[in-house]
Amino acid sequence: MNYCSHCGAPVELKVPAGDSLPRHVCGRCGTVHYLNPKMVVGAIPEWEERILLCRRAIEPRAGLWTLPAGFMENAETTAEAAARETLEEACARVEIGEMFSFINVPHINQVHILYRARLLDLDFAPGQESLEVQLFEEARIPWEEIAFRTIGLTLRHYFEDRRAGRYGFHVRDLVYPADGKR
Amino acid sequence: MNYCSHCGAPVELKVPAGDSLPRHVCGRCGTVHYLNPKMVVGAIPEWEERILLCRRAIEPRAGLWTLPAGFMENAETTAEAAARETLEEACARVEIGEMFSFINVPHINQVHILYRARLLDLDFAPGQESLEVQLFEEARIPWEEIAFRTIGLTLRHYFEDRRAGRYGFHVRDLVYPADGKR
Repeated sequence: MNYCSHCGAPVELKVPAGDSLPRHVCGRCGTVHYLNPKMVVGAIPEWEERILLCRRAIEPRAGLWTLPAGFMENAETTAEAAARETLEEACARVEIGEMFSFINVPHINQVHILYRARLLDLDFAPGQESLEVQLFEEARIPWEEIAFRTIGLTLRHYFEDRRAGRYGFHVRDLVYPADGKR
Repeated sequence: MNYCSHCGAPVELKVPAGDSLPRHVCGRCGTVHYLNPKMVVGAIPEWEERILLCRRAIEPRAGLWTLPAGFMENAETTAEAAARETLEEACARVEIGEMFSFINVPHINQVHILYRARLLDLDFAPGQESLEVQLFEEARIPWEEIAFRTIGLTLRHYFEDRRAGRYGFHVRDLVYPADGKR
């Protein structure tokens, strides 16, 4: 951030009065510009014993597989965001169920939230950001080609819970970028 | 948003290629500025049968009571945010427990998340943003003077769960600004 989005003057990095962290503060109008974490929200679309994955057409991690998910927009709820992303990336209609995983990823200022979801029909197709969309049974999940650590973690919890016969809610922190993956 | 925070030129509101919503796009450098919801994170600090509330010193809702909570910062986890806000607003040290409520507030582009928390000692005091900090048993909660709808909803679920002998996880949407309260 170099300029004030309110008045266009240069910003400087300083600790505002009464605050404890450096912020981008406008040298002219005094506006303090806060930067906050973003929510990435998506779905685990289920069809009988299989779940729907998308192969990414765009960076980061183009060519790898993921659950449909993306940045939550203003004016929507997390469940609406999960359904919208599933429609955009997999052209698929879902009924959103319970929140399943909530994963802090503080080194990239994100929180990833995945919902269980019931696929309403088999009329899916790659959206603009996907190369391919496919239903996978557990034994055929491409574990070595999963795009993001949060998605791999969510999928492992999902299949563990399914085997246990009871789906939980999983709050986790991915504090270290262990292998460079997001 | 009037100016590009990257290069300082005026922004215009338009739908970028491949997008579906209007965004603030820089007329000079082309940067697309996305606006996303913010997370407000806090704690329900417990001491035996009582919980800790703060009376707000600042707007909005100055003079009314709330749980310690505030905007999550970059580079922290939600549990760290809940502990930090409790320290800032109530000068209180807590051990953060389970996530308790998750409430979408789409008309103000926020998600409010409250954790159960164990107060570690009775050495609390008003922080800069609080007039007063006090432990309340259920019968003395100032229900008519609670600052925000999400906090009232969280407290009602909390005491219901306590009576039932089992604390759940409550995902809710507050879609309508029913009474003008946030």
